[in-house]
Amino acid sequence: MQAVRTDLAMEQTEFYKNNLPEGLSLSQEEKAGLKITRVEVVSEEGVKLTGKNKGKYITIDIPLATAGAEPADDVTHLLAQEISALLPKEGMVLVVGLGNIHITPDALGPQTVHQILATRHIPDQVAKESGLENLRPVAALAPGVLGQTGIETGEIIHSIVTDIHPGAVVVIDALAARSLERMGRTIQLSDNGISPGSGVLNSRKELSRETLGVPVISVGIPTVVDGATLVQDLVEKENLPMKKQAQTVMVTPRDIDVIIERGAKNLSLAINKALQPQLSLEDITYLVS
Amino acid sequence: MQAVRTDLAMEQTEFYKNNLPEGLSLSQEEKAGLKITRVEVVSEEGVKLTGKNKGKYITIDIPLATAGAEPADDVTHLLAQEISALLPKEGMVLVVGLGNIHITPDALGPQTVHQILATRHIPDQVAKESGLENLRPVAALAPGVLGQTGIETGEIIHSIVTDIHPGAVVVIDALAARSLERMGRTIQLSDNGISPGSGVLNSRKELSRETLGVPVISVGIPTVVDGATLVQDLVEKENLPMKKQAQTVMVTPRDIDVIIERGAKNLSLAINKALQPQLSLEDITYLVS
Amino acid sequence: MQAVRTDLAMEQTEFYKNNLPEGLSLSQEEKAGLKITRVEVVSEEGVKLTGKNKGKYITIDIPLATAGAEPADDVTHLLAQEISALLPKEGMVLVVGLGNIHITPDALGPQTVHQILATRHIPDQVAKESGLENLRPVAALAPGVLGQTGIETGEIIHSIVTDIHPGAVVVIDALAARSLERMGRTIQLSDNGISPGSGVLNSRKELSRETLGVPVISVGIPTVVDGATLVQDLVEKENLPMKKQAQTVMVTPRDIDVIIERGAKNLSLAINKALQPQLSLEDITYLVS
Amino acid sequence: MQAVRTDLAMEQTEFYKNNLPEGLSLSQEEKAGLKITRVEVVSEEGVKLTGKNKGKYITIDIPLATAGAEPADDVTHLLAQEISALLPKEGMVLVVGLGNIHITPDALGPQTVHQILATRHIPDQVAKESGLENLRPVAALAPGVLGQTGIETGEIIHSIVTDIHPGAVVVIDALAARSLERMGRTIQLSDNGISPGSGVLNSRKELSRETLGVPVISVGIPTVVDGATLVQDLVEKENLPMKKQAQTVMVTPRDIDVIIERGAKNLSLAINKALQPQLSLEDITYLVS
Repeated sequence: MQAVRTDLAMEQTEFYKNNLPEGLSLSQEEKAGLKITRVEVVSEEGVKLTGKNKGKYITIDIPLATAGAEPADDVTHLLAQEISALLPKEGMVLVVGLGNIHITPDALGPQTVHQILATRHIPDQVAKESGLENLRPVAALAPGVLGQTGIETGEIIHSIVTDIHPGAVVVIDALAARSLERMGRTIQLSDNGISPGSGVLNSRKELSRETLGVPVISVGIPTVVDGATLVQDLVEKENLPMKKQAQTVMVTPRDIDVIIERGAKNLSLAINKALQPQLSLEDITYLVS
Repeated sequence: MQAVRTDLAMEQTEFYKNNLPEGLSLSQEEKAGLKITRVEVVSEEGVKLTGKNKGKYITIDIPLATAGAEPADDVTHLLAQEISALLPKEGMVLVVGLGNIHITPDALGPQTVHQILATRHIPDQVAKESGLENLRPVAALAPGVLGQTGIETGEIIHSIVTDIHPGAVVVIDALAARSLERMGRTIQLSDNGISPGSGVLNSRKELSRETLGVPVISVGIPTVVDGATLVQDLVEKENLPMKKQAQTVMVTPRDIDVIIERGAKNLSLAINKALQPQLSLEDITYLVS
Repeated sequence: MQAVRTDLAMEQTEFYKNNLPEGLSLSQEEKAGLKITRVEVVSEEGVKLTGKNKGKYITIDIPLATAGAEPADDVTHLLAQEISALLPKEGMVLVVGLGNIHITPDALGPQTVHQILATRHIPDQVAKESGLENLRPVAALAPGVLGQTGIETGEIIHSIVTDIHPGAVVVIDALAARSLERMGRTIQLSDNGISPGSGVLNSRKELSRETLGVPVISVGIPTVVDGATLVQDLVEKENLPMKKQAQTVMVTPRDIDVIIERGAKNLSLAINKALQPQLSLEDITYLVS
Repeated sequence: MQAVRTDLAMEQTEFYKNNLPEGLSLSQEEKAGLKITRVEVVSEEGVKLTGKNKGKYITIDIPLATAGAEPADDVTHLLAQEISALLPKEGMVLVVGLGNIHITPDALGPQTVHQILATRHIPDQVAKESGLENLRPVAALAPGVLGQTGIETGEIIHSIVTDIHPGAVVVIDALAARSLERMGRTIQLSDNGISPGSGVLNSRKELSRETLGVPVISVGIPTVVDGATLVQDLVEKENLPMKKQAQTVMVTPRDIDVIIERGAKNLSLAINKALQPQLSLEDITYLVS
């Protein structure tokens, strides 16, 4: 079996078809017209098979029509509901956008964070006077990648978490997937952070409850695929001999600018709604624009 | 034989290895450390084989080190020299950047034109007082693509050419190539414009001496590859059965932002030098920034 | 009287308070909570006083709350209605965005045009199959400014108009105003194009029915103010001696990026609705994103 | 005396003309054609007069020609030399870009940091193999502003400094000045960080040796001026009655995009040269692009 590199737990289970090995569980449902796949990595065996932390991995497929524009309100509500279910009911939340804002397919995290409603610094009195009561305190940060900063992203986040003591961290990142068709059209949520081996060719430290000491929810959208995986996906054949280059090159669809812009809008709206359920989608759009 | 989609005449001849068919001619040389490949489509047979207009196609491979930064002065001088050889010695030149500025891999043309020194409107007296004598008149336009404007790009350029009567047109465009390794690292020049079938999934009208009535020089850098062609390039095997999607999807490297930024800088510097040989590269950089 | 430089007809009449001179007429009303001021330049005397072409100048003040976010649907509907009243009932329309996309306060035109739904190239059959019947043919162009292109913008537009024969032209441009408070918060419509003397320090040729041969509707938002005018506006005194520099420097508010982004969204939505009244605002948002 | 708001110590001393009060010292020189002004705040009286921390404030005026393009090598060398004189001779340096990357006149810090060569994470062995020996360890961060993050910038930097223990911090920020003519054309260096009252309408915590425990060098370029100060600067008169709005509105020149792009390039080149004196300007340009 040739390695298929993907950050989507769903794609890792597809390989097994009907013979899911021990250590993994899988269920599917449909809500508001969206296909939801729930994978759980339940044991060390599952961790070995997937390279992922133990935990829940929820994948939501956005239909093409919806992917192609302003998010439909019901999609946003469904997504907000799933994110909300992974978050503690109260307490300050730190939202972190991973990735490099200057590399389009890697800019999903920073672009999403740019539209997150930061509220931690707003005094209750000021919020009240603006008609915004009961704001949940939210902080938001896009620290950049190691090559930009010279500092491991995990180190930066650890420093901030130690200092401001959030009750949970939400981490947003661009993902690698197997199928080009999923670029920008699948959202993966997880309740146990980001594991070291994953991602878009960035060496990443684990961001999880183990390393940060608080629940870490991860939210991602696939934006890249590596050459070898793409070949596997497009050709109906296994064990193809490939050029060495295929393993290292990462490609992205030609319309990646549009994918990132829409993805960041969809994710930020849903995360804002999950964090401030008392606000309408109109209010949220007004406040972040 | 499975179709390989490429805008590079050089890649079309590679297929034939040592048995170049009639209608095509090929020569190679090395200058200033750069590999230069000259293909000529000399007959209707060559036109059929390549889908390209009769004419000269000059490909310059930029070494990785050079591709990765400010262009070395000797690369710029060599490139300027090759462009200059295709241009009439005098008369006004219209430089056109094709493509959509809002889609990164398609933005090479508009981004290059943004750095072209437009001089057609500068009165001689003003030029002299600024110490800029003997400026060749240059106009520069990035009209956008059909989907943005609702007007065929060829129509727009035809209108402008009819109105301002340039002595030649230089057309800059992002190209499709066979090999991912060539993205951003190869420059193709041609003395006979752009043919209808080519390019980055945009339906394009021919831009040539036939349609515009003046010499049309084209300058391009590969920035995308289609799925099927990529598979062909990465796998050492022919006649692979592929998913239908492979034929239609266009991909681009993850670091396309950097490729476009550098490509536009390199091309604009060389075109400016070819058009205003009396100016030093420092002067040009000063004037366009 | 010290010259106050403004492109807003409304601001030119404010100077006269209750003694409006001959050649100008003025009326005000309120609709959907918006203040609408209608100035008409009715004679050559009015042309001399204002430096503007004869015609109607409609100014709509957007309340701060609305200016600060997604446009409220009723504001968009009102604006669409006013634009619609200036346009011929049918026939192809060319929408032109003036200005330089790389200079933020001058980018209103290009950014608005980027969100205009171009339809001229869509075959009826394709439109029907997409559920889009009765699309009015629309072309859209952002040709850049003289310093970028070396070609007078008026020349470019004249060439295109001669070639594609639209029934009307809509011209979008950033304006100079007297009051900083109006930046981004006032929309001016006019039924007789753009006059030579106006604007954001760009030398501009007249764009009007006289020069283009078809009705020219202009749409603009103030984004800059010159130093001398700003001083006049902030100080409660006339005939102030000023440094020479004050006459030539143009300034813009610190948050100009936000002003341009919102302005372009508001204008494009209203123009699209005026041109395609059969589409809902949701449909339009979906189609241009 | 009406308050003139400026972050430039030089502009604060201009007010006193030849009667410099106690607590301030002033000297001027010219080097490589550049005017250098050195102000020192030497006592608590000087702190009260200027609202600035005790310390040295060095202002370098860039001639218009030089401000208008690629920085001349001698300007960069002079600037690098002045920065170098303020820095400890060795040890890791953290470079921080203050400001909001999405608001053009406030983006100087983030844009400069984007071009700083981060080296802290590069293992000696890797550096050697790339021909880069003796790299000084550098980290670089653009944390965003309070309204984006919900966290005081000072808190974020304090957390990181505590964690990674740099030997010094360099802070880059956009400044407010009195004169529009100085926008983008003056560079201020200081050896004692940033004081609370200063800046571009952002509430800022002090960043200094007192708060961070290590030397803090600040580097800034003026990019905004407030309305009241602008009026004072343009009118040859004092004690003018102004509208209230004049105190709160901040304006910026129309060509602020160009000012920020050039300023970030100039500053990053000089800071990189000061930190890695063994590298040539060509090497630095190559490595950061």
